[in-house]
Amino acid sequence: MSGPLARLANIKLRPDYESANNVPVADLGLIGLAVMGQNLIMNMADNGFTICAFNRTVSKVDRFLANEAKGKTIIGAHSVEDFVSKLKRPRRVMLLVQAGPAVDDWIGKLLPLLEEGDIIIDGGNSYFPDTNRRTKDLAGKGIRFVGCGVSGGEEGARYGPSIMPGGNKEAWPYIKDIFQSISAKSDGEACCEWVGDEGAGHYVKMVHNGIEYGDMQLICEAYDIMKRGLGLCHKEMSDIFAKWNKGVLDSYLIEITRDILRFEDDGEPLVEKILDKAGQKGTGKWTAANALDLGMPVTLIAESVLARYLSGMKEERTQASTKLGFVSYGSGKFEGDKGKFLDDLKQALYASKITSYAQGFMLIQEAAKTFGWELNKPSIALMWRGGCIIRSVFLKDITAAYLKQPDLSNLLFDDFFNKAIHEAQPGWRHVVTQAAQLGIPTPAFSTALTWFDGYRTKDLPANLLQAQRDYFGAHTFRIKSGCGNDKYPEGQDVHVNWTGRGGNVSASTYNA
Amino acid sequence: MSGPLARLANIKLRPDYESANNVPVADLGLIGLAVMGQNLIMNMADNGFTICAFNRTVSKVDRFLANEAKGKTIIGAHSVEDFVSKLKRPRRVMLLVQAGPAVDDWIGKLLPLLEEGDIIIDGGNSYFPDTNRRTKDLAGKGIRFVGCGVSGGEEGARYGPSIMPGGNKEAWPYIKDIFQSISAKSDGEACCEWVGDEGAGHYVKMVHNGIEYGDMQLICEAYDIMKRGLGLCHKEMSDIFAKWNKGVLDSYLIEITRDILRFEDDGEPLVEKILDKAGQKGTGKWTAANALDLGMPVTLIAESVLARYLSGMKEERTQASTKLGFVSYGSGKFEGDKGKFLDDLKQALYASKITSYAQGFMLIQEAAKTFGWELNKPSIALMWRGGCIIRSVFLKDITAAYLKQPDLSNLLFDDFFNKAIHEAQPGWRHVVTQAAQLGIPTPAFSTALTWFDGYRTKDLPANLLQAQRDYFGAHTFRIKSGCGNDKYPEGQDVHVNWTGRGGNVSASTYNA
Repeated sequence: MSGPLARLANIKLRPDYESANNVPVADLGLIGLAVMGQNLIMNMADNGFTICAFNRTVSKVDRFLANEAKGKTIIGAHSVEDFVSKLKRPRRVMLLVQAGPAVDDWIGKLLPLLEEGDIIIDGGNSYFPDTNRRTKDLAGKGIRFVGCGVSGGEEGARYGPSIMPGGNKEAWPYIKDIFQSISAKSDGEACCEWVGDEGAGHYVKMVHNGIEYGDMQLICEAYDIMKRGLGLCHKEMSDIFAKWNKGVLDSYLIEITRDILRFEDDGEPLVEKILDKAGQKGTGKWTAANALDLGMPVTLIAESVLARYLSGMKEERTQASTKLGFVSYGSGKFEGDKGKFLDDLKQALYASKITSYAQGFMLIQEAAKTFGWELNKPSIALMWRGGCIIRSVFLKDITAAYLKQPDLSNLLFDDFFNKAIHEAQPGWRHVVTQAAQLGIPTPAFSTALTWFDGYRTKDLPANLLQAQRDYFGAHTFRIKSGCGNDKYPEGQDVHVNWTGRGGNVSASTYNA
Repeated sequence: MSGPLARLANIKLRPDYESANNVPVADLGLIGLAVMGQNLIMNMADNGFTICAFNRTVSKVDRFLANEAKGKTIIGAHSVEDFVSKLKRPRRVMLLVQAGPAVDDWIGKLLPLLEEGDIIIDGGNSYFPDTNRRTKDLAGKGIRFVGCGVSGGEEGARYGPSIMPGGNKEAWPYIKDIFQSISAKSDGEACCEWVGDEGAGHYVKMVHNGIEYGDMQLICEAYDIMKRGLGLCHKEMSDIFAKWNKGVLDSYLIEITRDILRFEDDGEPLVEKILDKAGQKGTGKWTAANALDLGMPVTLIAESVLARYLSGMKEERTQASTKLGFVSYGSGKFEGDKGKFLDDLKQALYASKITSYAQGFMLIQEAAKTFGWELNKPSIALMWRGGCIIRSVFLKDITAAYLKQPDLSNLLFDDFFNKAIHEAQPGWRHVVTQAAQLGIPTPAFSTALTWFDGYRTKDLPANLLQAQRDYFGAHTFRIKSGCGNDKYPEGQDVHVNWTGRGGNVSASTYNA
């Protein structure tokens, strides 16, 4: 037995874990034996730690010990009291249970059994305001609470996830070793670093999930264009994703797409038998809603969430498909060079992805300002580089950009990404153009391009919108820099009596 | 004095309103003398009602009585007690104050002075869950509460707004006459009808505002394309909007755009001097957030809200405009026939607008289902036909569609709109194509088209997305109808071991 914490504590652990009743031998206790919990425990055990497993349905503990956990430094418990008694001090309890009331329930059960300085870690996808609340509440009770985003799915949890801990920083020295040991490594660096105060870890995980929604939607749109626009077969599509996986798009999601498109059942691609109603667990929606709250134009994630909603309306779409015909602009068929167009498609995917990450980091930056968190952008990019669903070579370039300029105000202003998106533009525009002409929906590609064009536009048409608001609602407007005069001065709220009728009262309390 | 309620009550009112101390002469009392409140009072007085005006800053009451209200059947009050004492029974008190705590504050001040059966009407842009709460709370106290959306800006309030009342239906007989008298008329019908229970009135007003965001954004995009894409001058643009205002696009917002583009200062179009940072008061954001909550893909409103956010980042955009160059696909210049393209632009605006209203009514339909409200879709369209900011000929067609088929599941399935969007498609696709090629941002046009293409697609690429989710997170998927077999049966949650590694546990509680 050679777990680092065991070494530190200089405790000789018993070889027979099943008989370790009420002896505090475990480096960490984990509650919640669904797939993520089981796999995290086995990962920790493989890294030399002794883990105590517990579950609401206790029979699951025994099944786990008798099967997956057999022969590993994993012990079990049959009650919360039993569980807590087996943990070394300060006790480290990790919850892998459903986000929401279940987390509060477990905290309530644990509290009477814990001591000052003990640590509770919530490894689920909790909503960050809940983590803010829990961190504060528990600090008042002497318990150090950590809200910890874990990404990587079942594979990641088993062999190296991305871990994003935040909350009470006093806990960090006691969990750093375990978490950095089990996490993924990217170029030798652990994909786990302290994120920030309160719910910062869960916040960053939430945005990670939002970005994941975007990445997946982009890949789906590329696949749809290849399939319906170019008429490629699954072998061809899989080969293209395989090829893309060797360049700038090299990433886990591209890699699994390559595999999925190859996966057959009875000689047919299984993917075509899968119902096209996208499920979701709400974290993408949280990201979009939070972007609305913070006033940030995170369009790609928003469109990706709404695209999942639309996919869910299968019955209505089926009905619509018979009622709403396609009328083309142009021939309605792809007529160019497929090979060249596939290069354009790659550029469109790359440029849209750059845009999405730029939006995501804008959101994180604004959240840090709003909530008073000190967030380390290079660390965040590093944590996402390995282990998690959005892991990619791309995130290495983002890490590099933020390491070079930690105060970089926008990812697009980094030389590398600036050049990349510059070069990608013609292909990107071509793909959006073709999709509109062919009648293939590309919400993510399209919103990315139109957002990019808006972002790089000094004078948007919102001047007209402001005029309209003043016209109908006396909402007033401001004058552009350098355009003021005595009648329409700069730096003041100006109201115009556009019609010559109406009053001179500007709207102060009532807002249309 | 000939107000209908005065007639009903058969009360001979005094001609000298200023001396009417503590005599209950007023048909309605209104609190909040900003532009909307003042104009509603004058509108009511012009329609023969006697109104008592009150305001937190009491000096405003005297100023109002001495100026705008002079010579009308308008009296004032100098305290809440004074105000209440001047109202006929059952007392009708209308609040036109800032949405939020101010509404609760005023309710708190009024409550001790009111009697069972009295009516409080909130005419501000309150958030509908607040109205749900207030309706219930006040019903428990014997007070009938009405949450009432009012649209039309200052002009509308003065000469005929659209009014959307909901809440405690017992109040309706006592306010119907006043509200239907002062509201706009469309083909002789009042643009005011009872909407539904609780916050239904404010909900429908909220969606109205969201749709208004969309309409405004679409017009701005058309203007931007005309100006930057086609190089038209303001006189030309104004003429085009004037022309559009005579056909299917005939509407208040097109009409005022025509006027705004003509409005000059020192011989130059004033609109170009207006700062392009779009303001907002949050109702568009509420609509987008509610769509996220209800799982409805209301993309056009969402993009319009986010476009306002992007417009607000003027400093960052100015910086970006120097750093992010435009690289065209094609020549980068418009090269076709401008006249023909303007027809396409009109079609794009029309089709996008149809899409937006289809989305808006989908949202309303879902809300009715979720909240258990019985909403009358033809009435809603009717209320929006006149008086409000989005009033248009178009809404007449929507009213007709819902009158013909009250259970119409989607506006796009109505013959009239089906045909309209069918014919508009080539022009719409052309505009989105050109904008992408010219680098002009069209978030609303683009999302409308891509949503339409998604909606009319039977098989979206979300099958791949579901495969990805099962691959990395064991989230399971379903099999398409008709595609099942023994290994992959229909109607069950199927999990595939895609890699041959990993476990057979599917994710039940932990969700990535």
